Amino acid sequence: MTDVVTEKTTDTVVLGRNQYGKAENHVVRINRDTDRHEIRDLVVTSQLRGDLEAVHTVGDNAHCVPTDTQKQTVFAFAQQYGIESPEKFLLTLADHFTGEFEWITGGRWAAQEYAWNRIDDHDHCFVQNKDEVRTAVVVADGEERTVISGFKDLTVLKSTQSGFAGYPKDKYTTLPETEDRIMSTDVATRWRYNTTDVDHDAVYEDVKRIILTKFTDHYSRALQETLYLMGKAVIEAHPEIDEIKFSCPNKHHFVYDLGFCDLPNNNETHYAADRPFGLIEATIQRKGAPLREAAWTGIAGFC
Amino acid sequence: MTDVVTEKTTDTVVLGRNQYGKAENHVVRINRDTDRHEIRDLVVTSQLRGDLEAVHTVGDNAHCVPTDTQKQTVFAFAQQYGIESPEKFLLTLADHFTGEFEWITGGRWAAQEYAWNRIDDHDHCFVQNKDEVRTAVVVADGEERTVISGFKDLTVLKSTQSGFAGYPKDKYTTLPETEDRIMSTDVATRWRYNTTDVDHDAVYEDVKRIILTKFTDHYSRALQETLYLMGKAVIEAHPEIDEIKFSCPNKHHFVYDLGFCDLPNNNETHYAADRPFGLIEATIQRKGAPLREAAWTGIAGFC
Amino acid sequence: MTDVVTEKTTDTVVLGRNQYGKAENHVVRINRDTDRHEIRDLVVTSQLRGDLEAVHTVGDNAHCVPTDTQKQTVFAFAQQYGIESPEKFLLTLADHFTGEFEWITGGRWAAQEYAWNRIDDHDHCFVQNKDEVRTAVVVADGEERTVISGFKDLTVLKSTQSGFAGYPKDKYTTLPETEDRIMSTDVATRWRYNTTDVDHDAVYEDVKRIILTKFTDHYSRALQETLYLMGKAVIEAHPEIDEIKFSCPNKHHFVYDLGFCDLPNNNETHYAADRPFGLIEATIQRKGAPLREAAWTGIAGFC
Amino acid sequence: MTDVVTEKTTDTVVLGRNQYGKAENHVVRINRDTDRHEIRDLVVTSQLRGDLEAVHTVGDNAHCVPTDTQKQTVFAFAQQYGIESPEKFLLTLADHFTGEFEWITGGRWAAQEYAWNRIDDHDHCFVQNKDEVRTAVVVADGEERTVISGFKDLTVLKSTQSGFAGYPKDKYTTLPETEDRIMSTDVATRWRYNTTDVDHDAVYEDVKRIILTKFTDHYSRALQETLYLMGKAVIEAHPEIDEIKFSCPNKHHFVYDLGFCDLPNNNETHYAADRPFGLIEATIQRKGAPLREAAWTGIAGFC
Repeated sequence: MTDVVTEKTTDTVVLGRNQYGKAENHVVRINRDTDRHEIRDLVVTSQLRGDLEAVHTVGDNAHCVPTDTQKQTVFAFAQQYGIESPEKFLLTLADHFTGEFEWITGGRWAAQEYAWNRIDDHDHCFVQNKDEVRTAVVVADGEERTVISGFKDLTVLKSTQSGFAGYPKDKYTTLPETEDRIMSTDVATRWRYNTTDVDHDAVYEDVKRIILTKFTDHYSRALQETLYLMGKAVIEAHPEIDEIKFSCPNKHHFVYDLGFCDLPNNNETHYAADRPFGLIEATIQRKGAPLREAAWTGIAGFC
Repeated sequence: MTDVVTEKTTDTVVLGRNQYGKAENHVVRINRDTDRHEIRDLVVTSQLRGDLEAVHTVGDNAHCVPTDTQKQTVFAFAQQYGIESPEKFLLTLADHFTGEFEWITGGRWAAQEYAWNRIDDHDHCFVQNKDEVRTAVVVADGEERTVISGFKDLTVLKSTQSGFAGYPKDKYTTLPETEDRIMSTDVATRWRYNTTDVDHDAVYEDVKRIILTKFTDHYSRALQETLYLMGKAVIEAHPEIDEIKFSCPNKHHFVYDLGFCDLPNNNETHYAADRPFGLIEATIQRKGAPLREAAWTGIAGFC
Repeated sequence: MTDVVTEKTTDTVVLGRNQYGKAENHVVRINRDTDRHEIRDLVVTSQLRGDLEAVHTVGDNAHCVPTDTQKQTVFAFAQQYGIESPEKFLLTLADHFTGEFEWITGGRWAAQEYAWNRIDDHDHCFVQNKDEVRTAVVVADGEERTVISGFKDLTVLKSTQSGFAGYPKDKYTTLPETEDRIMSTDVATRWRYNTTDVDHDAVYEDVKRIILTKFTDHYSRALQETLYLMGKAVIEAHPEIDEIKFSCPNKHHFVYDLGFCDLPNNNETHYAADRPFGLIEATIQRKGAPLREAAWTGIAGFC
Repeated sequence: MTDVVTEKTTDTVVLGRNQYGKAENHVVRINRDTDRHEIRDLVVTSQLRGDLEAVHTVGDNAHCVPTDTQKQTVFAFAQQYGIESPEKFLLTLADHFTGEFEWITGGRWAAQEYAWNRIDDHDHCFVQNKDEVRTAVVVADGEERTVISGFKDLTVLKSTQSGFAGYPKDKYTTLPETEDRIMSTDVATRWRYNTTDVDHDAVYEDVKRIILTKFTDHYSRALQETLYLMGKAVIEAHPEIDEIKFSCPNKHHFVYDLGFCDLPNNNETHYAADRPFGLIEATIQRKGAPLREAAWTGIAGFC
């Protein structure tokens, strides 16, 4: 997003970056064109950017497209255009708002999508698949569109073939080295496309498949290594993706010491701790590809 | 649970029902006997009942088995006996505590279980299946054991073949009748066994299957009817189950009125509301079977 | 609630206890009769009981007062009668529904109330007080009304004058005795009135005051003792209350062992654990007062 | 944070920004130097940045200071140095880690603080004040330290003296203009200091006071205007603060239409909606002060 220097409104302060809109519009769109219904279930947030200084500084709402109007547009567009994918839907919203109101020069549209599986391959009965939550963000800055897709809360665990050793020690280090431990995380990841010409649903499924498979195929010397391998595999397999970020907890599973009652415990019985947890954040980028740092602004938990 | 009348400790007040223990012990038990690991992932709560009056009334802890001891026992038993099923594990704990301490005459042991699927049929890599959370409760009262199994948060939706009509109207009624609407709920259910001699894992899978299938097979005139049909099917298929309860929200999906922009909406675009929601609670029992009301005490949200 | 034996609808199953309604109607009622506004902020759940068998068993909705009607009534009554207190408001709803529909013989009405303080004693600007959440339940069974008031999430801590010793030991006991520890809990409590002729707001404030003060005035030998003393003080001070229940976590604060870096730790630096936690549930009753067990059904976490 | 271009590890991909550490260490520090105890209750996250490429790309942990060591250091420092303020505590951690390990060139340390009030002015008994959660972040990049303080979840409401009118209309606009409505938000704010030489506790209390008072003193034409006025007042009153951001929901309170039962409703009875909600994000900066954009990276919900 451009760093617009706005006119000063007082001798002391200046309005900096700002955006506003309607958050978490929960739209469920059924395609009933045939008896075999299709469902898309999205929570959509729309936020506008542009010449909005007077709204803040002098209470002049002439440029303040109501958040209610943004909501109405989300639902109207879901009906009119359907939801081919979260990304395509957000791109349509971005084009609309930046086209409809001349002072709206950009914005940010985000969605979470919930997946539904058919029950017994039924035509209109579904059970929600909660394994992960799909995410999508579109950032518009003038004509530029940046699409960041991802998911969160995909919880994986390997019960062996993970260790942690060879690390530096100081006076506060008491952790023993290990060559066999449980490794578990909730994968949260976001990847940035270098184009909007993408079959977003197909790429989503393939990226998820790559990440899951990559989790299984090596002895992990640290969660950092595993995340890097996941990201590298995604970048190498998908030329339309220039960058992928991970923000993943190391969900500790401590081997429970049962020496007090003379029981052995060969990494069998664990206490799964809630807090504190490790937190590993990493970015893997295509070599030489241009960055788009501003598009990542405001995404929680990604460094 | 017996309604013990305790000795009065003052002229005015008397100690009534009470229990105490350690809640939410998160134990992850890996079976590594072969290279193909198995995982059971439980959050276990242990609560004891019995002659505990002096703990409360005169600060005498001679009968107060520490909650820490209950925790240690949970982890030790996970190691020593493994976890065949949540129900069997809780029964073992119940027998232990009521047998070990003569003044502990009963208690309540509960678990939530999280399911894991193999990634690509891998030997030791798993992805969590979050479709629903399995629950189990064992209530002990002297020699009596009551086992209540269940699950929660199984989210289902049918996009047609549901309606609501023929209801009474008064001056506060504005709801229009409909013969075609979305019906969606998070199934929370608990069923009570009439025996402990059960393959709890197998019955669990079958009850879940029955509930899902029954959701699909009829035009639903109200969520009440659908829950009743689910419960009836479970009781009829499983002679070892005497009673099943449901506590299910009616998750409203309102057809979005797009008349303001002249768009039709043939039950295609919906607003999924969070609150308020309908809340339907029902019990289906085997005719003539004895009740065990006390065992249900303290289970949230089940009338 | 009466244990109605309903007519059997099949040879195998029978409908047991059931109730239904609209949950979590969030109503904010401003009294603007003068410039000094008053605010009551309630989340209200209405659930009806009665002759509802045909709704479940044959899909006949003739007795099924819509949950939408219950919602409309909640908001209409908030406007028409105002909200003197959560309890009085729920009693009015109970009388209405059992009076309006002859087949509705009882029900359960519940509320959570959020408190607001004035900002700088301002007439119409408020800041929410989140120290605890007030709760109220009214259960109607025919002409009988049971009122259960309470609160939850009142978090207290004493940094000394608490210990735990003198408890039984077995092979799973490793906990060391202590005469000085942090004791902390989130007080959740519910008390049952023996009359509806109560100034519920005034009693609420006084019960909260008693509980807070009682927390401070003794060396606690166990959380059980402290809860008993709290309950005893409430019963002795309030003749209109016959019974009070507590469900309170023992929120462990472990003294952090800093021996690894040769630092002393005289109960100064603690690790506050999330799970597992102790869980203490107790009931204190007025000696000789009649019980109303059925009214407690479905209240989570109270034995 | 510097945009370090790291050595490429493959022909295709490069490691971008990354950080790692231990999240949510819940430390409760009691000052018991006198009988009148003091309590600081913090959840602390430590994350390190620096030359960490080999950890990711070749599984070499020689630079990977364990997250466990970070945790141990947090608790050791709480004991050794006490917690004067969250900000001072985080600054001490920043200096330690960047000084102790030469390859650690920066990092991010964050805290949430929970406030405790004395019960009846008692020496060692406290009740938690949950009105808001205090936040603090320290970002270190080489010798540079950026301190961002703030709070979240301070819920305020004004029952009149708020309106919304004069906004642009298009075909999706149905919102009626109003000159009298409820305005309510959960204030989340973060402010950036231009120095570390600050009495952070005193400034915190004053900023909170300014924000609350400013909420009350004007007719609000939009939440944007109110946030701007709050931020302007803070910047003008505190020369040590160069920038303040807000991320605030517009929590809709809809006047409930009771025309169906012929009841008037003069902005008295409202339905408080959960989702969707307005979301207003704004930055107010001291004119001419240098920006520190990188320090804001990864803070959720602030544009």
